[in-house]
Amino acid sequence: MDGGVDQTKTKRSGGERKEKKEKAAAPPTKSAKGRKKETGLGLTNTKDGNFGEWYSEVVTNGEMIEYYEISGCYILRPWTMAIWETMQNFFDPEIKKMNIKTCYFPLFVSNTVLQKEKDHIEGFAPEVAWVTRSGSSDLEVPIAIRPTSETVMYPYFSKWIRGHRDLPLRLNQWCNVVRWEFSNPTPFIRSREFLWQEGHTAFATKEEADTEVLEILELYRRLYEEYLAVPVVKGKKSELEKFAGGLYTTSVEAFIPNTGRGVQGATSHCLGQNFAKMFEINFEDEKGEKAMVWQNSWAYSTRTIGVMVMVHGDDKGLVLPPKISAVQVIVIHVPFKDADVKEIMNACSATVKALCDLGIRAEADLRENYSPGWKYSHWEMKGVPLRIEIGPKDLANNQVRAVRRDNGSKVDLPMADLGEKVKGMLDDIQQSMFDVAKEKRDACIQVTKTWDEFIEALGQKKLILAPWCDEEEVEKDVKAKTKGEVGAAKTLCSPFDQPELPEGTLCFASGKPAKKWTYWGRSY
Amino acid sequence: MDGGVDQTKTKRSGGERKEKKEKAAAPPTKSAKGRKKETGLGLTNTKDGNFGEWYSEVVTNGEMIEYYEISGCYILRPWTMAIWETMQNFFDPEIKKMNIKTCYFPLFVSNTVLQKEKDHIEGFAPEVAWVTRSGSSDLEVPIAIRPTSETVMYPYFSKWIRGHRDLPLRLNQWCNVVRWEFSNPTPFIRSREFLWQEGHTAFATKEEADTEVLEILELYRRLYEEYLAVPVVKGKKSELEKFAGGLYTTSVEAFIPNTGRGVQGATSHCLGQNFAKMFEINFEDEKGEKAMVWQNSWAYSTRTIGVMVMVHGDDKGLVLPPKISAVQVIVIHVPFKDADVKEIMNACSATVKALCDLGIRAEADLRENYSPGWKYSHWEMKGVPLRIEIGPKDLANNQVRAVRRDNGSKVDLPMADLGEKVKGMLDDIQQSMFDVAKEKRDACIQVTKTWDEFIEALGQKKLILAPWCDEEEVEKDVKAKTKGEVGAAKTLCSPFDQPELPEGTLCFASGKPAKKWTYWGRSY
Repeated sequence: MDGGVDQTKTKRSGGERKEKKEKAAAPPTKSAKGRKKETGLGLTNTKDGNFGEWYSEVVTNGEMIEYYEISGCYILRPWTMAIWETMQNFFDPEIKKMNIKTCYFPLFVSNTVLQKEKDHIEGFAPEVAWVTRSGSSDLEVPIAIRPTSETVMYPYFSKWIRGHRDLPLRLNQWCNVVRWEFSNPTPFIRSREFLWQEGHTAFATKEEADTEVLEILELYRRLYEEYLAVPVVKGKKSELEKFAGGLYTTSVEAFIPNTGRGVQGATSHCLGQNFAKMFEINFEDEKGEKAMVWQNSWAYSTRTIGVMVMVHGDDKGLVLPPKISAVQVIVIHVPFKDADVKEIMNACSATVKALCDLGIRAEADLRENYSPGWKYSHWEMKGVPLRIEIGPKDLANNQVRAVRRDNGSKVDLPMADLGEKVKGMLDDIQQSMFDVAKEKRDACIQVTKTWDEFIEALGQKKLILAPWCDEEEVEKDVKAKTKGEVGAAKTLCSPFDQPELPEGTLCFASGKPAKKWTYWGRSY
Repeated sequence: MDGGVDQTKTKRSGGERKEKKEKAAAPPTKSAKGRKKETGLGLTNTKDGNFGEWYSEVVTNGEMIEYYEISGCYILRPWTMAIWETMQNFFDPEIKKMNIKTCYFPLFVSNTVLQKEKDHIEGFAPEVAWVTRSGSSDLEVPIAIRPTSETVMYPYFSKWIRGHRDLPLRLNQWCNVVRWEFSNPTPFIRSREFLWQEGHTAFATKEEADTEVLEILELYRRLYEEYLAVPVVKGKKSELEKFAGGLYTTSVEAFIPNTGRGVQGATSHCLGQNFAKMFEINFEDEKGEKAMVWQNSWAYSTRTIGVMVMVHGDDKGLVLPPKISAVQVIVIHVPFKDADVKEIMNACSATVKALCDLGIRAEADLRENYSPGWKYSHWEMKGVPLRIEIGPKDLANNQVRAVRRDNGSKVDLPMADLGEKVKGMLDDIQQSMFDVAKEKRDACIQVTKTWDEFIEALGQKKLILAPWCDEEEVEKDVKAKTKGEVGAAKTLCSPFDQPELPEGTLCFASGKPAKKWTYWGRSY
């Protein structure tokens, strides 16, 4: 495959730039060690052709991920971490406004505490990594690495919470967790170590807990829709899919049209009083009576970034929404024949400065040992939202050429007032990326009312919306019946935004009266 | 001991407030579980009397630390994390200005890679924690948890760096590391897991590496002196004390007068080409010739916070410098007899709002179930730099009373223009805390030129500055000779700021010609 680079071959007349994209051009400096060729030029797989390989190529060639020598662990490179930090810079102040405080609990947890909540440990036990040795001596008892921190934190909630004035207790930590999974490690989406924030809160009343669950879920929706430009569905998980040990789980669910798989984007759980019971988190209420707290926990992880890559990426590489891209505008000089290169370069630098002064994250790539064509491909691979090219003719006309990464459209912009124009374009790209993604996602939604329709839609990689009786046994049955090489279908969520359910509607699977509309599909 | 609460007993006339400090008053809500009494009132140890116990009490009662069920691991509570984040908000933008990028490498490292640099692994091997099991199955090979990330990262430096244009490569990560130490775990100062930033950089020339080492060290000095108000000495470590596997180590060294111990505050290492050799980090230079990179690594950790507590804390608890305190001003209402409490409370809220509008981190404690005296003690324990009290008389006079935490001084401030006044006071407290700490530290410095003087000064808990021959065997010898219950003396650093060394000066320990002045002492 050609990596899709043809599309942006320059078609401008005037002969000012003739460079074609150089596919997989040899880098100017040769490796003394004979390693893989430099990144940035062409993918060998297409998104439609072989999605898995394409994804792996995009995240590595786009310099987001480096595969690590320990399977299931990945190196998050600066191009990734800039996105992570931007999301953090939105989310962290938002929860601080809600009076949620930052804390940090240890990485390690003892077996005794880990075992305390039965459903919880059943859910996590197979994936727990155990430290049994330090230096050359065995530990007296093995110590677990946190797969999540409920059991790490709640003994201390019990200690700290005594009266109603100690409530609410609202904590959040930014940390790494470890889940030693064996199935299909995938960068960002399923890795043995990942970064996340985990919020853990305790309230005097269920009402307050319920309210927070939805407030946090709304922040997760905003992260996906406003920052990552990925449409999500807010909803409630089924009993089978809810958090181990919790009362109910809400989530934002994304969908990858190419694979027809849903992906749980982030979760906001109400734990009810289950952990409170196990960990004795009691308080004296205003009447002086002993009561038990209501708890929530909620998290989003680096998985968010993988979902974004899967949704937006194309055959030329990453496509990053402007809001989260480390570099929003890349400025490239286009030398031509006898034109004064220095002058063009100066114009590029001046342009970058003007844009940066307006708060736009702009950079120039003025390397002389790479051709413009090579650079176009390189920065397209890295997904930079907007490219600005400046050549002699542009200079003469007091203009620049701007090329959008998301749709390849090109436009000449007058240098005067460039900053405002670029700002507008970036906003437009952000919105347009969301709209396009939503259109694609919506086109995949298929309403099915019978088992046959369901199976057909599943085969067509649809995001299935079906009336369901909401019975756990029925979901288990559907899973069993659809179990195949590519994984069983399961519920993704019951959307909060429920279509009308006419009386007498039957469950597509059991034929019993349907209680709600639920999204079904295969998932990550 | 009384926890030193007498000093701030109110001496104001007018009878407007009579509350004495209530020592260890029972909290208003009683524990249903019979746990330890509520924090915040009185220490049972003094800083001079039993420093170790005092420290432990201060960090727990001040709500910075909670002891964790796994020895050597500690819970960092919001009061701590706010300080950590403030420091991060200074340091991270500074290194980003230097074009150092954020990355995240895995927590795990294979034995093969860990072993690659001999001196390095010798330094860390005894403290490495090993994961040998996941779920209920043994791993094929045990996997180490990073004690530091040189060996985690450098194989990829080797992969990414090929030509001189790939240099410099400058990365930093914020993460946790694990060192399973067995000697004296101490919150912040020596813990089995801790948070830090670790910078790892590679350059084409030694000159560039040398320059960065000092630039980073200067940022560390600023963190200590400008943020934590702790005076430090910049200098170079001895061969014996330098980073395992590095070329040379620079550090900022703090000193704890009460224990007479030095404490390594943060380190900036030049690794030279040693790791480059082991990990084959080569590049083609501008002439097309193969060359090896020069590397640095540098880190500061949560230890910084422990040093700050040790230096500034007093018998009433924490004393926090305004710049890093989560709450800079605590406003407390002082009701009296028939005075209109509501009106006083409103004045408190208005004061908080006025201060916050100016960017001051102010909060009111308007809880009615605690007396003013109890609150004074509570917020003194937590180290809040400035307390503002408002009673009926203050209200009538359009003034507030301000009480400094660092020196207990009290002053009435007119409400008009309060914000600017408070700003000035906070700046003054910050500067004054540094000055006082520096004076105390300087008073401990003892120049010794002979072995006898050295031993005497060591017994007097001095920070010893002595002429030294700079020979490793001599340092080993000094360590051996001073080894006692409280630990051996060793070099802390040779200060960059060297006093004159007259020709013919002899080493205090070996009698050989001295090459430099070096700080010696016991250390953490």
